Amino acid sequence: KLKSLLNEFHFADVAEILDELDLDDSVYVIKLLDSETTADILTELDEDTREKVLENLSAKEIAEEVEELDTDDAADIISELPEERQAEVISRIEDDEHREEITELLAYDEDTAGGLMAKELVKVYETWTVAGCLRRIRGQAAEVTRVHSIYVVNKEEKLIGRLSLKDLIVAKSEQKIADIAKDNVDWVNVNDDVEDVAKVMSKYDLEAIPVVDNNQKLLGRITIDDIVDVLKEEAEKDYQMAAGITGDVEADDSILELTRARLPWLFLGLVGGVGAFIIMYFFEENLPKEAIILFLFTPLIAAMAGNVGVQSSAIIVQGLANDDVKGSINSRLIKEMLLATLNGFILSLFLFLFVFAWEQDFKLALAISISLVAVIIIAGLIGTFIPLFLDKRGIDPAIATGPFITTSNDILGILIYFWIAKLILGI
Amino acid sequence: KLKSLLNEFHFADVAEILDELDLDDSVYVIKLLDSETTADILTELDEDTREKVLENLSAKEIAEEVEELDTDDAADIISELPEERQAEVISRIEDDEHREEITELLAYDEDTAGGLMAKELVKVYETWTVAGCLRRIRGQAAEVTRVHSIYVVNKEEKLIGRLSLKDLIVAKSEQKIADIAKDNVDWVNVNDDVEDVAKVMSKYDLEAIPVVDNNQKLLGRITIDDIVDVLKEEAEKDYQMAAGITGDVEADDSILELTRARLPWLFLGLVGGVGAFIIMYFFEENLPKEAIILFLFTPLIAAMAGNVGVQSSAIIVQGLANDDVKGSINSRLIKEMLLATLNGFILSLFLFLFVFAWEQDFKLALAISISLVAVIIIAGLIGTFIPLFLDKRGIDPAIATGPFITTSNDILGILIYFWIAKLILGI
Ligand SMILES: [Mg+2]
Ligand SMILES: [Mg+2]
Ligand SMILES: [Mg+2]
Ligand SMILES: [Mg+2]
Ligand SMILES: [Mg+2]
Ligand SMILES: [Mg+2]
Ligand SMILES: [Mg+2]
Ligand SMILES: [Mg+2]
Ligand SMILES: [Mg+2]
Ligand SMILES: [Mg+2]
Ligand SMILES: [Mg+2]
Ligand SMILES: [Mg+2]
Ligand SMILES: [Mg+2]
Repeated sequence: KLKSLLNEFHFADVAEILDELDLDDSVYVIKLLDSETTADILTELDEDTREKVLENLSAKEIAEEVEELDTDDAADIISELPEERQAEVISRIEDDEHREEITELLAYDEDTAGGLMAKELVKVYETWTVAGCLRRIRGQAAEVTRVHSIYVVNKEEKLIGRLSLKDLIVAKSEQKIADIAKDNVDWVNVNDDVEDVAKVMSKYDLEAIPVVDNNQKLLGRITIDDIVDVLKEEAEKDYQMAAGITGDVEADDSILELTRARLPWLFLGLVGGVGAFIIMYFFEENLPKEAIILFLFTPLIAAMAGNVGVQSSAIIVQGLANDDVKGSINSRLIKEMLLATLNGFILSLFLFLFVFAWEQDFKLALAISISLVAVIIIAGLIGTFIPLFLDKRGIDPAIATGPFITTSNDILGILIYFWIAKLILGI
Repeated sequence: KLKSLLNEFHFADVAEILDELDLDDSVYVIKLLDSETTADILTELDEDTREKVLENLSAKEIAEEVEELDTDDAADIISELPEERQAEVISRIEDDEHREEITELLAYDEDTAGGLMAKELVKVYETWTVAGCLRRIRGQAAEVTRVHSIYVVNKEEKLIGRLSLKDLIVAKSEQKIADIAKDNVDWVNVNDDVEDVAKVMSKYDLEAIPVVDNNQKLLGRITIDDIVDVLKEEAEKDYQMAAGITGDVEADDSILELTRARLPWLFLGLVGGVGAFIIMYFFEENLPKEAIILFLFTPLIAAMAGNVGVQSSAIIVQGLANDDVKGSINSRLIKEMLLATLNGFILSLFLFLFVFAWEQDFKLALAISISLVAVIIIAGLIGTFIPLFLDKRGIDPAIATGPFITTSNDILGILIYFWIAKLILGI
């Protein structure tokens, strides 16, 4: 009865319900129903829930679930298990071909095309006829949820073209596959980064792409639904990184997990604040008592330096991700300098008017507002330079946004501010 | 010769090249080649480039390009034209059906399913036989690049099911469509928000989804390639909003466009900084001279308040986007309070040790570090509350991240800091 009830829902919806249930109840449901029903539910559970559910299943039970899944999802689930269990589960998979394919997939890094691909695809040889092909692919297609393209290989298993089901239906049954195949087939290498695979598929509007090895041998296929998941995960990761959160946490994670993700970046901010204190401490020693008013503007200076830095780094990081940043680093820096000068000038004008109105001190107002222009320019240059520099060095520039830029700009901004203000005020 | 050269490249690649060329050269290429080749290139150009290219084409030339495009892309291009030109271009589209479909699509808001759907789809009536169906859909399918599902409607044009090409090929030719159609067809309403459409398609791993009106009448179809574009655009918009950039700018936009996107948020930061100055000004008047050391920690306090606020708002904004935030606002706030207390306590311990080591003043170290705990807790609560509050009010909570949170937390943090420090120091 529960089974027929659950069968009315999509497995993704059932997974959402199980995510909310007690662990015991979720395990009960997974154990009770046969793996044909539950395998897909398992793939859609939250990683945390799945980990706990799998701990409560025997190796044999996990193998039964995995048996029902496409090779890519099967490999993903097995790779989440502790290493000792992985071998045990694999050895209990009864279908020899499925076991070998999963074992092959487990060898690839999860951030590569190999880590994302599935072995399920429809493959035909160039020497076949349309009629023979139609007969044989009925068998292959039964295993493949959605056919998309039919991939054409030569006798060395090298990818040489593709066909659509439509092409096959329209063709005459005695035609050779080699004669009707399209040879402009897109493909990715098994070692390509998943973000590059996503770029290719989204640029060419592909729903599936074949994966080949260095010899052009057809190894597997990546489908767009898994790319959609990659895009969402990457966007979330970049967003969190910019907010100073590491480790892919969610609102519903435990306080300890959230602390582990947030504390390191807060600590960086603390160190930056202490650095700012030390700088101001030495300035304060050498400044006359009237100059205490300068200290009242330090939060403003730090905030502007931080905001400008975050803006310019965000634009560069996003441009780099879209292969949108053309020209040399120098031309970027010159552009950012012009931009920062324009913004800085407008903002400083307002600050000048405020300080002058408040303190009736022309020189003070001038000193503070000129410092602000300088701080904004330097902050913009740093925000532009650091991500470009990291990218050139092969480091993900997204790490440079958020707390990293804010903290370094806070310190540097305050240093520049006092130095220029002191100079202008002649104290 | 140029044509055959360009035909070897994918239109998305040609568009990338034209984006880099002089406007004159781009216009020359688009005018020279027939619209069969250039229409797809047009859809893939940068919005800025396309706008300029279209300014250099006559209404008749644009109509010719549009004639070659799917209705969704055609409507998107026309909607970018100035209003006077829209009517002119539409009236010059020769194919009556195409013109009417495009006109229909232009009526929908671009953020809704209607704004994203195309009229191209394969539709069959439940009363048809498989054989009749195969015959008739050959005509329809020729217009549709990828068939995905075949949608089954009743005589009132209401969507009642779907079929795959595979189902149709496997079925016997005398069977009725009504007997082989699957009735569990997913669909979206034409007024649904595109982000909700993206959620449904990514949750159920769909490659296409039919769009219906309030009477369940089949209106169009959305394909996953356009959803991939939506997901990327939304992610970029949220990322920019969190960095204090509005208006969807790119690294290669002009300085003026970039200034317009960045200046408003910087101005907000300036106002916040002035607010912080005013607060400190009045505290300073009433504080003894020894207390000047308190002012040297204000950048630290403001930075911590900002960072904590950005972290907690980012987690809530992301959780809301994923429908991941369960439970009441109160339970959220309690969780954030516990989290902030834990983080705050650890960070304050370090700050206490530093201040005590530097100044040898137990009471001062205590006052500053207790204030820091309080500031972190309040900052976390504000960062959690504001997005939840905006979301309840139907406002996109993403607006609350970044400069908005940083600025309000800067001011409030400094106020709390001085207030508590004064209390503890008894000055
Ligand atoms: Mg089971
Ligand atoms: Mg994998
Ligand atoms: Mg695309
Ligand atoms: Mg497209
Ligand atoms: Mg898959
Ligand atoms: Mg990334
Ligand atoms: Mg700040
Ligand atoms: Mg043309
Ligand atoms: Mg549209
Ligand atoms: Mg999915
Ligand atoms: Mg999936
Ligand atoms: Mg489209
Ligand atoms: Mg959004």
